[in-house]
Amino acid sequence: MADPATSPPLTRAGVQAAHERIRPYVHHTPTLTNATLTALASSPRTPSSSSPATAAKETADTTSSAEAEARAEVGETTAPVNGSGKKAPVMRLYFKCENMQRIGAFKARGAFHALGRLIDEPGWLEGGGREKGVVTHSSGNHAQALSLAARQHGIPAHIVMPTISPPPKIAATRGYGANIRFSGSTSTEREAEVAKVQAETGARLIPPYDHPDIILGQGTLGLELQEDAAALIAAEEQDAAVDGAAFFDYRAPESKTLERNLRRQGSSATANGNTSPAKKTRKGLDVILAPCGGGGMLSGVALSCEGTGIKVFGCEPSHQGADDAKRGYESGQRVRTVKTLTIADGLRTPLGDYPWGVIYERKLVSGFYSVGEEQIKAAMRLVYERMKMVIEPSAAVPLAVALYDEGFRDMVSREAGEEGWDVGIVFSGGNVELGMLGELFAAKPEGEGA
Amino acid sequence: MADPATSPPLTRAGVQAAHERIRPYVHHTPTLTNATLTALASSPRTPSSSSPATAAKETADTTSSAEAEARAEVGETTAPVNGSGKKAPVMRLYFKCENMQRIGAFKARGAFHALGRLIDEPGWLEGGGREKGVVTHSSGNHAQALSLAARQHGIPAHIVMPTISPPPKIAATRGYGANIRFSGSTSTEREAEVAKVQAETGARLIPPYDHPDIILGQGTLGLELQEDAAALIAAEEQDAAVDGAAFFDYRAPESKTLERNLRRQGSSATANGNTSPAKKTRKGLDVILAPCGGGGMLSGVALSCEGTGIKVFGCEPSHQGADDAKRGYESGQRVRTVKTLTIADGLRTPLGDYPWGVIYERKLVSGFYSVGEEQIKAAMRLVYERMKMVIEPSAAVPLAVALYDEGFRDMVSREAGEEGWDVGIVFSGGNVELGMLGELFAAKPEGEGA
Repeated sequence: MADPATSPPLTRAGVQAAHERIRPYVHHTPTLTNATLTALASSPRTPSSSSPATAAKETADTTSSAEAEARAEVGETTAPVNGSGKKAPVMRLYFKCENMQRIGAFKARGAFHALGRLIDEPGWLEGGGREKGVVTHSSGNHAQALSLAARQHGIPAHIVMPTISPPPKIAATRGYGANIRFSGSTSTEREAEVAKVQAETGARLIPPYDHPDIILGQGTLGLELQEDAAALIAAEEQDAAVDGAAFFDYRAPESKTLERNLRRQGSSATANGNTSPAKKTRKGLDVILAPCGGGGMLSGVALSCEGTGIKVFGCEPSHQGADDAKRGYESGQRVRTVKTLTIADGLRTPLGDYPWGVIYERKLVSGFYSVGEEQIKAAMRLVYERMKMVIEPSAAVPLAVALYDEGFRDMVSREAGEEGWDVGIVFSGGNVELGMLGELFAAKPEGEGA
Repeated sequence: MADPATSPPLTRAGVQAAHERIRPYVHHTPTLTNATLTALASSPRTPSSSSPATAAKETADTTSSAEAEARAEVGETTAPVNGSGKKAPVMRLYFKCENMQRIGAFKARGAFHALGRLIDEPGWLEGGGREKGVVTHSSGNHAQALSLAARQHGIPAHIVMPTISPPPKIAATRGYGANIRFSGSTSTEREAEVAKVQAETGARLIPPYDHPDIILGQGTLGLELQEDAAALIAAEEQDAAVDGAAFFDYRAPESKTLERNLRRQGSSATANGNTSPAKKTRKGLDVILAPCGGGGMLSGVALSCEGTGIKVFGCEPSHQGADDAKRGYESGQRVRTVKTLTIADGLRTPLGDYPWGVIYERKLVSGFYSVGEEQIKAAMRLVYERMKMVIEPSAAVPLAVALYDEGFRDMVSREAGEEGWDVGIVFSGGNVELGMLGELFAAKPEGEGA
């Protein structure tokens, strides 16, 4: 890793500079919309229907949920069941598909940025850096990302993985040309093996999230999301979205027609909650929801929004205390250890130092929300069924917040009113063990908190 | 169903007219590319590695396959294992994503077209057609498609489904507002129930594939695929694809650079098989591979290509004689009954009368290829893992042909030479029972032919 002191500043301009650097190596992934999910997010829910327990029951009861989703697709929603009289929030969702990024997750961005910066470090090349290579410990997306970036730059990558890592992950990492080193599974054992590799080879450590270069690299997805969502919104607003530009607009045609007619009539009335009423002036996103594990990506996205007026919220699993960032942010005391087996396996880590600085100290993140395991599974199922996209559990957490977290939904109702908000949702990755999907989507979900 | 005698002609112009009619109601779905799958399709394979048995073994051996795929992503392929000396075919793949169509499959196109035509039939409205409604028997995508189309036109839809249909399918169809009628599962029982509904209500039958209006509607996907693939190819050729237009181009940057350099050097040399060498003049697709069940969509796509020079091939499962169209086409004797439990459950039906006329009598389809169950599963797994797309087994059949059918691959090597072909692949739908994915992707596939 390059010396953090030489990193570009942790600002929006720093993220823009990172984007210029990595552009030739990463995909500009699509930003998609989906009529059904936007309708579901903007449908009234009873307080009980959004609790994890009821979400679990709803997931199990595929009959009623399939019916509700089909109704949402034709532009209907079931009436609120109880008399709570709560107003449904109005949200229009824009999904940033980093599951379609190289190696299947946003981590490629940070790895290419960190490596590019390292290569440019004065003295690195002369000191034999290209032969010494880089090292990290990871059994997840960062391992593949670093291996790919190193391979593409012709630099050896040493990846320390626990012996018990799933064979397909080991094979995929090796497939990118990395040199795999095995260790025990505790962090002490892993770090010892990294130290050993460094002693043997002189390789430089590229950590998964706690470094400015990584943060700036991950933040580049935020720039693309802002830009593409603004273009989609402008196209909707200008009525130009009917055909060509509507290529990736999966909203049902009838709701578009309705909006158009409302605008043509010069009506300031908004349609009912589930038909995406147009705001008077929609210039771009109002909010971005991003998953939070170590906080590298969340803090990068927050930097990408600095000064734009777009609010950024972190989204976490609540299972077994995985909501460490939320607890730390709300108490002002960073939580430094987490031990959770949430299915959102990319989000099991506590916040790093640099992310904490951006997220909490500079308050570039406006707040946190957390959701339960069954809510994550229910959101994930909706993405598979209605968007036909493969995402990993961690990537489903922000959508689960938008659909099921009453705190978030009440806030949107209150602050956005009838005009609603344009909400960016980060699909962080799509690397899921396919063999476990059946279990995950089984009709009878297992109880939470086991 | 409108009287077939009044249908637009079974020609490319007829498909274009159908497209105009249904355009407001269906999605223009995306056409995507993928670097890894294009590289895999253009990699050498040993004769044995493409047999179903070996494909099964390869699927089971996730270690070696994950490694091979990772290598493909970084632009490498493993050398051919034996000395057969066979040339790898060169293919550039373009995927038409009808899994992202409304109701999750191309069937929405035919249903909206057939219903629109029926509504315009002289006397239909006056005869109380709008109250009498429409009827069909289906437990699959056609049921949902017709229900959606009818609902959107404010017409009742009666759907006859076997009592044993999966509850989520029943619920989804009901969710689109259809009136479900249950029957036994034999075709005699289903047809008897349809007759009963017709006697009671006067509803008109809308069959799933054997009608010109359905064929013309399904064929509209072929027009979009031709147009979008041509645009992607032109962008590649004009070197304009580097950034903006490359939005959905998931090819690895390095291979693009290589191509560009070759062209800049004015070199007529082609790169090695796995880096998509540019042809001298690429104007659009050379070939489309489409799945074939009842043949409605295949014949529609063939019509959409009439006079364009694009060859269309039908793709079938071979399991338990599901390759009825292939056998019929090759022997000149249509196979009228099929009894198969192939996992490609959308392709279990024999060819209809109208499709046979287009496919065989008019020879608008150039031939058929069939693949085994394990090849279908292996192709499906690649789409989930590498494209992050949810497709149903039927939709994986054309990709399985491109990757594993030696007959097809030899033909491409022979006819396309080093310049290769631009190949359109129809992803027909994405409605898969999520609970069964685990089984489908289990590490140890069950033997074929059981």
